[in-house]
Amino acid sequence: MFKDSDKYLSLVDSTLLELLSKGRDAYKVLTDSMIYSVSAGGKRVRPMLSMAFASLCGKSPEVALYPACGVELIHTYSLIHDDLPCMDNDDMRRGKPSNHIVFGEDTALLAGDALQSLAFEAILCPESISLMGNENAAKCGYYLAKLCGARGMVGGQVIDLALEKSNGDVDTVSLMHSLKTAALIKAACVMGCISANADNAQIAAAEEYAECIGLQFQIVDDILDVTSTTDVLGKPVNSDIENNKSNMVSLLGIEKCRTLAKELTDKAINALKAFEGDTKSLEDFALDLLNRNK
Amino acid sequence: MFKDSDKYLSLVDSTLLELLSKGRDAYKVLTDSMIYSVSAGGKRVRPMLSMAFASLCGKSPEVALYPACGVELIHTYSLIHDDLPCMDNDDMRRGKPSNHIVFGEDTALLAGDALQSLAFEAILCPESISLMGNENAAKCGYYLAKLCGARGMVGGQVIDLALEKSNGDVDTVSLMHSLKTAALIKAACVMGCISANADNAQIAAAEEYAECIGLQFQIVDDILDVTSTTDVLGKPVNSDIENNKSNMVSLLGIEKCRTLAKELTDKAINALKAFEGDTKSLEDFALDLLNRNK
Repeated sequence: MFKDSDKYLSLVDSTLLELLSKGRDAYKVLTDSMIYSVSAGGKRVRPMLSMAFASLCGKSPEVALYPACGVELIHTYSLIHDDLPCMDNDDMRRGKPSNHIVFGEDTALLAGDALQSLAFEAILCPESISLMGNENAAKCGYYLAKLCGARGMVGGQVIDLALEKSNGDVDTVSLMHSLKTAALIKAACVMGCISANADNAQIAAAEEYAECIGLQFQIVDDILDVTSTTDVLGKPVNSDIENNKSNMVSLLGIEKCRTLAKELTDKAINALKAFEGDTKSLEDFALDLLNRNK
Repeated sequence: MFKDSDKYLSLVDSTLLELLSKGRDAYKVLTDSMIYSVSAGGKRVRPMLSMAFASLCGKSPEVALYPACGVELIHTYSLIHDDLPCMDNDDMRRGKPSNHIVFGEDTALLAGDALQSLAFEAILCPESISLMGNENAAKCGYYLAKLCGARGMVGGQVIDLALEKSNGDVDTVSLMHSLKTAALIKAACVMGCISANADNAQIAAAEEYAECIGLQFQIVDDILDVTSTTDVLGKPVNSDIENNKSNMVSLLGIEKCRTLAKELTDKAINALKAFEGDTKSLEDFALDLLNRNK
């Protein structure tokens, strides 16, 4: 996503493990449980977006290292809690047993809680402050807290729960995607900008890019759910369809959704014009999300 | 606990409600659930400690208003998650139905998650920054994050879970209390100091005071569990005793515990000598905790 991405991907992985490895033997099961999910094969899309935007704003990607780790820790905690029996009750995640299947529900719940704390600890730790200063670190923490809480990711999850029980309209489903998915992508992109001293116009552009690719991602998801192969019994392999749960395709139809996804991609790419640096890789990222097959 | 405490107690209550009331209609059930537990009759001990220490360091108690709210939000989230069926499975909390009984397990889980985010949002919000500056706000957030996560409160909860299943020694039970209870009290006291520009000696003294009253509180709890009246069937009204779960009294005997509680109280009061201001109310608080009957 930017020059030497692979090097920075390794740096994110090693920093995450360093942040996670400071515990005591008395609660080793907790750190084991946290490390299990953080190391479960996530693609680190959000950390890479943070570092790409820092780079685009003319700084070393490394300046956003701790916000990059923070947003990944939040993402990981949300997956653990999402999989719990009282939520989606998923036994598997990324082809491996879910956290609560391996460690028990109580430890999984607490691992999620501790991962959230660790996200803010990472962003505000002395190493992070020395990279971007107190003001930027405080701004990043504030921005992430807002976008992962009730008015962000968690708010979106609650709307999603409500949609399991009753039909929603396009506005409600869009708001759900905007909060549940786009909010954390926005936090990733904007924290990258903040850590690199971006101006308000650049921050607004990063917000626009993130909001557009977040919504586009979910619409393409809904399209792929309809167009993807059915299972051996001929049933569509999509729980939303089985549930008759409202989604963008059921509400707007597939053609309208394809047009909308394309428009959002164009809008995301257009937003990148606010930056002087090389935006090719972030443009390609938006196009890859649009043109994916799974 | 300090001059005009009642006034600041009202300020904490109104600020908490303000922080909680910024949501949208689409996820109103989430904010209702968060407000339900924040307004469930907590005594606001931790916020009052934050403000008392800010006052003791020569600033207006108000300077610590947002960390005070932050620590209360963390405390509240921990109670909601503690009561969940996969944890203590408590249907009642402070004489009212637990959060998950009223709102369902899924919403209760998410309300706890969002309350944790809101704690950091509060500490790092513009109003908080204008009261204490970026550096102090970042330090407070870092300190709270460390003490409420794996190496603090949540670590203590995991040790507590382990003690349900196998016996512990005095060191393990002490570490559990130190993390599960004292850590958040420490965060409250120390954030009060940080917000008032305290020096390192004062911060260390606040840590000592908090650690001592936290441990003393739990030891007195264990003593009261043994000496408190039995139920109508003559069974002790204490689940730890019923479970044969290791606690300070079962490990050390009641007399040794009484001596230890008194020593910790003296040590807490002695720590306050690092401050020039009037420490009477914080001394009284430590003594009240020691001499309580329930």
